[in-house]
Amino acid sequence: MKPTALGEFGRIRRFFAPLAGPGGLGLTDDAALLDCRPGYRLVVTVDQLVEGVHYLPNDPPELVAKKLLRRNLSDLAAMGATPLHYLLTTALPASFADDWVRRFAAGLAEDQERFGVALLGGDSASTPGPASLTMTAIGEVAIGKEIRRSGAQPGDRIWVSGTIGDAFLGLKVLRTDELVGLGPAYAEALVARYRLPEPRCGLGPRLAGIAHAMIDVSDGLIADLGHICETSHCSATVEQIRLPFSAESLVILCEGWEQPAALATGGDDYELLFTAPPEMNDAIAALAAELAVSISEIGVIEGGAGVRLVDDAGQEIPVEAAGWRHF
Amino acid sequence: MKPTALGEFGRIRRFFAPLAGPGGLGLTDDAALLDCRPGYRLVVTVDQLVEGVHYLPNDPPELVAKKLLRRNLSDLAAMGATPLHYLLTTALPASFADDWVRRFAAGLAEDQERFGVALLGGDSASTPGPASLTMTAIGEVAIGKEIRRSGAQPGDRIWVSGTIGDAFLGLKVLRTDELVGLGPAYAEALVARYRLPEPRCGLGPRLAGIAHAMIDVSDGLIADLGHICETSHCSATVEQIRLPFSAESLVILCEGWEQPAALATGGDDYELLFTAPPEMNDAIAALAAELAVSISEIGVIEGGAGVRLVDDAGQEIPVEAAGWRHF
Repeated sequence: MKPTALGEFGRIRRFFAPLAGPGGLGLTDDAALLDCRPGYRLVVTVDQLVEGVHYLPNDPPELVAKKLLRRNLSDLAAMGATPLHYLLTTALPASFADDWVRRFAAGLAEDQERFGVALLGGDSASTPGPASLTMTAIGEVAIGKEIRRSGAQPGDRIWVSGTIGDAFLGLKVLRTDELVGLGPAYAEALVARYRLPEPRCGLGPRLAGIAHAMIDVSDGLIADLGHICETSHCSATVEQIRLPFSAESLVILCEGWEQPAALATGGDDYELLFTAPPEMNDAIAALAAELAVSISEIGVIEGGAGVRLVDDAGQEIPVEAAGWRHF
Repeated sequence: MKPTALGEFGRIRRFFAPLAGPGGLGLTDDAALLDCRPGYRLVVTVDQLVEGVHYLPNDPPELVAKKLLRRNLSDLAAMGATPLHYLLTTALPASFADDWVRRFAAGLAEDQERFGVALLGGDSASTPGPASLTMTAIGEVAIGKEIRRSGAQPGDRIWVSGTIGDAFLGLKVLRTDELVGLGPAYAEALVARYRLPEPRCGLGPRLAGIAHAMIDVSDGLIADLGHICETSHCSATVEQIRLPFSAESLVILCEGWEQPAALATGGDDYELLFTAPPEMNDAIAALAAELAVSISEIGVIEGGAGVRLVDDAGQEIPVEAAGWRHF
C-alpha cells in the first residue's frame, strides 16, 4: 500500500483544516490574518523538533505534537504572554503513513482544546531526511506587561516554579541502565516529565508586575539563569539546598545515583525561572497558593557576572555542563 | 578544522543578531514582541526550503537565503500585505561550516535592506539529515483591504503580472540537455528567474479595492487558478494566446522545444494572479503603467467548477500536470 492514500492536499483537508481557527481562513489562503486587540502586543516564537535529535523515531505521534506545541507555549509563558494561535510546518519522509499524520493532528487537537489555541496556517513538504516539525506560536500581552530576560536587578530574589531535573532523569531512565533500581511508578513519572512538558501558561501572565526578568528552563536551570544574567548584566548565586526536587528525584539523590548539580544543569524542565525584588515575596506566595503551583526561592541576583551554585557553607560547587548546544 | 569555530550561540550573535529589528530584542529573549498599528491587521505566512528538495546542495547560500525570504514575501503580496518582519528556523548538519552560515546571513542582509524587513527571532538546531530552513514572515494590511483567494465572481477577468514559465524553463536548462540550442544569455536569464524569484511586493498592496481574489503563482498558473476557483466556487477559462511569455520563452516556443501549456503548469513564477471585475480594466492599466509592471488579461471567471485552457478556436487544450505536490 502506498504510504499516503490522501496525498499532500488530502492530508491538509482531512487532518489539519479542522484545527484551523477563524484567522486561518480554513487553511485555503496564502497567509493567515491576525487581529491584535487595542492595548495589546503580539508575542511570536518559533521552535522545531527534528526526529532523532529532539525525539525518538518510535515516540507516539500524539506526544510529538504536544511536545512541539508545549515547548512553544512555554516560550510565550516566559514572556508573560497568553497563547492564541500557531502555524505548523512539516517536512516528512515520503515513507510516513497517513496514520502518523492523523495521530499527530489528533495530539494537536487535544492540546488546542486544553490550552485554548488554534491553527492559523503552515506549510508541508517532503524530505529525504528525518521528519522535521517547526511551529510558530503567537500570543498576546498587554503593552508594557511583557517580561523580558534583561530586567534582573541586584537584590532580586531568584524563583523557579515546580521541580527541576525530572525530565533529565526521565531521559536517563530511557537511555541508560543506571536508574534500574528505581521503582517502576517513579521511573514512569520521570519519563512522563521528559516526554510531555507542562508549560506554565497560567502562571506566566500573572507574573506581570511581579517579576523583573523571566525565562523558561529548557537548556538547564544554570544555563538559563546564565542567559538572564548575561542580558541583565548581573550575576546570580543559587543555593543548592533550596533547589526544588520531586519525590522521585529525591529518591535518586538519596541513593547517591545522581548529584543535585546534574539536575540543575539538565534541560527540558519547562518551568518558569524568574527574578523579583524581595518586596514581592508575599505576592509570589499568594500567587503560588491561588494557582496551586509550587514556586521556590533559590537564590539572589548580585552585581558582576556569571552564575554560581553554592553549598550550605557558601562554597561554590563545580558545574560541569553549561547547558545544551547543538554545535 | 572543526566546521564551526563559533558554535551555535556564536553564530547567532555574529551573523543573525545584526539582522534583528527593534521587536527582535537582539535575539536574546524567548519570543519577539510585535506591535500592530490601529486599523491594521497582521498577515502571517510560513514556508520552508529543504536541501535537495527545494534547492540544490551546491546553490550559493546567499541565493538560498533570498529565495526563502522572497517566497514568503510573495505570499504576503498575494494577500495585499506589506512585509514587516520574519522569524528564521534552521536545522543544519553538523558538517556545515560557519562560512555557509555567514554567506546565508549576508544574503538575508541584502534582501532585508531591499524589501524593508527585519529579523524578529528564530530557532537553530542540528540535524542528521539535509539542511532544512523555515521562515515565518509577517506583514500588515489595512483592515478590510486584505485580498483572499475566495472572492472571485463570475464575470471577473483573470490577470497575471509579469511573464509565466521562465522559472520552469530555467530549471529545465539546469537539469536537462533539451534546451542546449538556446543562446547562453537567454539560458542565463531563465536560470536566474528560477534561482531568484522577484516577489511583487509593490503591486500586491496596490490591488486592494481592485482585485476580488488573488494568489501568487508557485504551484503553476493553472493549478493556482484552480485554488482560486475551488475556494471561490467558480470556474476559469484561460486563453492560451493571451498568456504572457518572455522573449526567452518565445524563442523556445517558436523552436518547438516546449509547448505553451507546459509553461502554464510549471511552477515557481511568483507572479500575482488575480481576478477583477471588467470595470477595473482602466485602473489596472494605470497601475501597470505607474509601477512599470506588465499585467496581462488572460481569461474570464464563470460559474461551475474547474480551469480550462483554450486555443484560438475555443477548443480545450489538455493540461497534463495539475501542479506540484510533495506526496
